[in-house]
Amino acid sequence: MQHKSLASTGCAVARSLERVGEWWSILILRDASYGMTRFDEFQKSLSIAPNILTKRLNALVEGGLLERRQYQERPARFEYVLTEAGRDFRPVLWALLDWGTRHLSPEGPTVQVVNRRTGKPARLVMVDGDTGEPITPQDFMAAPGPAATPGILSRFAFVEEKRRDPEAKPKFAASATPSA
Amino acid sequence: MQHKSLASTGCAVARSLERVGEWWSILILRDASYGMTRFDEFQKSLSIAPNILTKRLNALVEGGLLERRQYQERPARFEYVLTEAGRDFRPVLWALLDWGTRHLSPEGPTVQVVNRRTGKPARLVMVDGDTGEPITPQDFMAAPGPAATPGILSRFAFVEEKRRDPEAKPKFAASATPSA
Repeated sequence: MQHKSLASTGCAVARSLERVGEWWSILILRDASYGMTRFDEFQKSLSIAPNILTKRLNALVEGGLLERRQYQERPARFEYVLTEAGRDFRPVLWALLDWGTRHLSPEGPTVQVVNRRTGKPARLVMVDGDTGEPITPQDFMAAPGPAATPGILSRFAFVEEKRRDPEAKPKFAASATPSA
Repeated sequence: MQHKSLASTGCAVARSLERVGEWWSILILRDASYGMTRFDEFQKSLSIAPNILTKRLNALVEGGLLERRQYQERPARFEYVLTEAGRDFRPVLWALLDWGTRHLSPEGPTVQVVNRRTGKPARLVMVDGDTGEPITPQDFMAAPGPAATPGILSRFAFVEEKRRDPEAKPKFAASATPSA
């Protein structure tokens, strides 16, 4: 983990980043979601140094996103399988895929999410599952939740104040719930 | 940029990661999406070293996610405003927020996406915008797109082969379109 303090404001984005680790971890999760499980598969797919791969895999196991599972006895060999939390990380991968396709892939989609039944590429849209409304900045906004820390409350209060007074000076509370 | 070669397989996830930079960049984009624009706002919110913040802001400007805009003449002062591509990065932030809230926030949501009109927290779900179907692994899968590189095709072909033969050995094509 690079930034032990990232999660200290209590922000779930920061917690996710701290837990997942770094770029390599996201690419490992990507390959795992495609169906790769073994060390040499990740290693060859990512052209990553073995010692770095070992570190990243261990961090993902510790973080609860991958499970290390023995698949052979003699010699003992292990594979890495997505946990429920790891499978649940897929929307982040899809959102990154979608953004990169729209903004960085002038040649068109290199990978796409397709409907298994029809084979048709999906148009990825985030909606409110309760109402079906697309999450647009016009209709939705981020706001402190019931478990907001003083650090989070002070950031949202500042942004509110800044809307009225562009010269407002930021003063942010430190976290009330420092990360472990 | 840490991993110049990340995008070399043509994968849009890797391209996105390479473009965005690293964790700090995502937290800067988070704060920018909340409404922060100025150097000292980011600096205080993130408790980030000024030289690192400068580097990250410049990379985000170069990457086309932020625009540097002068807001004062004497002395000249600049702020950083999300571009269209930067605003469009929000689904990645929401997906990270959602994952972190569900898996790393036993105390409940610290930040949530709420409906501006009703104030009700949204239940974030990714759907196929054309059919409204939720993107579940049961109904959808990743597949090579029309612009897939040999590297991507060989990875998907391997995963397919591995499904039939768990002992299949990975052999991946190098990229036909190395990153600049």
